[in-house]
Amino acid sequence: MGENIGAVARAMMNTGLDELRLVEPRDGWPNPAATAMAAGADRILEAATVFSSLDDAIADCHWVAATTARLRDMVKPVLSPRELAGTLNTYSQAGQRTAILFGRERSGLTNDETARANAILTIPLSPEHPSLNLAQAVLLAGYEWFQLAGTDRHADVTNAGSVPDVADRREVEQLTANLIARLDASGFLSLPDKRPRMIRNLRNIFERHDLTQQEVNTLHGVFKSLATRRAD
Amino acid sequence: MGENIGAVARAMMNTGLDELRLVEPRDGWPNPAATAMAAGADRILEAATVFSSLDDAIADCHWVAATTARLRDMVKPVLSPRELAGTLNTYSQAGQRTAILFGRERSGLTNDETARANAILTIPLSPEHPSLNLAQAVLLAGYEWFQLAGTDRHADVTNAGSVPDVADRREVEQLTANLIARLDASGFLSLPDKRPRMIRNLRNIFERHDLTQQEVNTLHGVFKSLATRRAD
Repeated sequence: MGENIGAVARAMMNTGLDELRLVEPRDGWPNPAATAMAAGADRILEAATVFSSLDDAIADCHWVAATTARLRDMVKPVLSPRELAGTLNTYSQAGQRTAILFGRERSGLTNDETARANAILTIPLSPEHPSLNLAQAVLLAGYEWFQLAGTDRHADVTNAGSVPDVADRREVEQLTANLIARLDASGFLSLPDKRPRMIRNLRNIFERHDLTQQEVNTLHGVFKSLATRRAD
Repeated sequence: MGENIGAVARAMMNTGLDELRLVEPRDGWPNPAATAMAAGADRILEAATVFSSLDDAIADCHWVAATTARLRDMVKPVLSPRELAGTLNTYSQAGQRTAILFGRERSGLTNDETARANAILTIPLSPEHPSLNLAQAVLLAGYEWFQLAGTDRHADVTNAGSVPDVADRREVEQLTANLIARLDASGFLSLPDKRPRMIRNLRNIFERHDLTQQEVNTLHGVFKSLATRRAD
């Protein structure tokens, strides 16, 4: 169905996979239903190529994995998505072309089709409910590929926003000193035998975390406000 | 939408996640559209619990991650699904309750909602097209959890007990509510246009960290002491 192909294109775009090859799409090609579902992944659909047989589609590939939930009576390596990502990477590094084969939304790949592959991709899922739709299977396979291929990129993604200005130790120490002085004044630390441990606990609360400079300023204001105006 | 909730239940079932908590589902609960979409994950929908506020929903949790694609100006640890799985496992092994927070299908979580979490889950995806639907995000988070739970459960048992008695969300929420009430009384929050952001900042300071129960108690005492005795 076109909707499934569109959803697959989206999952590919999510995970940095580019090249989509279709074997005998049921409703012909191009398919407006695919485009409607693709939501921004039009580029992948437009570049998709159509083949009249699986053999033609994978003819120029050096290594192919077939995705199947059921394990058939075949002697092939069975890989998880993570293992598959590693294998794909190894082949790619050697300049070889690889492919992941996905079957029809309902019936999957036939035995004959699976037989074409070098290895089987099985996604470890709860035995209680192991079935995914087509686009979800593509998403998980692509996700593992992207984690591997994008190790460097990952750092950029997570640091995208500006890193806030974490307060330095001196600023945090001034904050706790301020608090301790106010608590001495308020009587909170008046039991001599408890005072050292209380102070250690307070330091631990504020000093073990990465407070930003702004947060340190906020807390200075909070302590001052609480201490200088009577609340009840 | 019910369809999204059903798809989420399916992704949970796929990945061995059991407990679904809903906060103010738009179309009420139960919802036939959810059941129709759940396709075999009825068990999770039937056991789902409904809450009228996020605070209630996470009240008994010790550690919460908020899922968001956009990184806000908040200082919280940012975890990938794989890192999150490891963290969840550590807390679970110590007998503590954890939750992953997902937002609305379109708009995600608000800043105020995100402020309730200890950490942010961001799924590393292609910058060209980083958006997932809700069920896909649940699937990827659950997938990593399932991969880990399948292999590492053993190893981490020996680390049980390394996590101190972390306060649960209810206890931390009560602490910030206490502080806010005292600051309202002291006049610190008297500028109406600044109040919401100030409150968010305060929540963020105390709620993103793993405060222990003892530390929460200490801070209650600190706030009370500062507020009830004049310091200068």
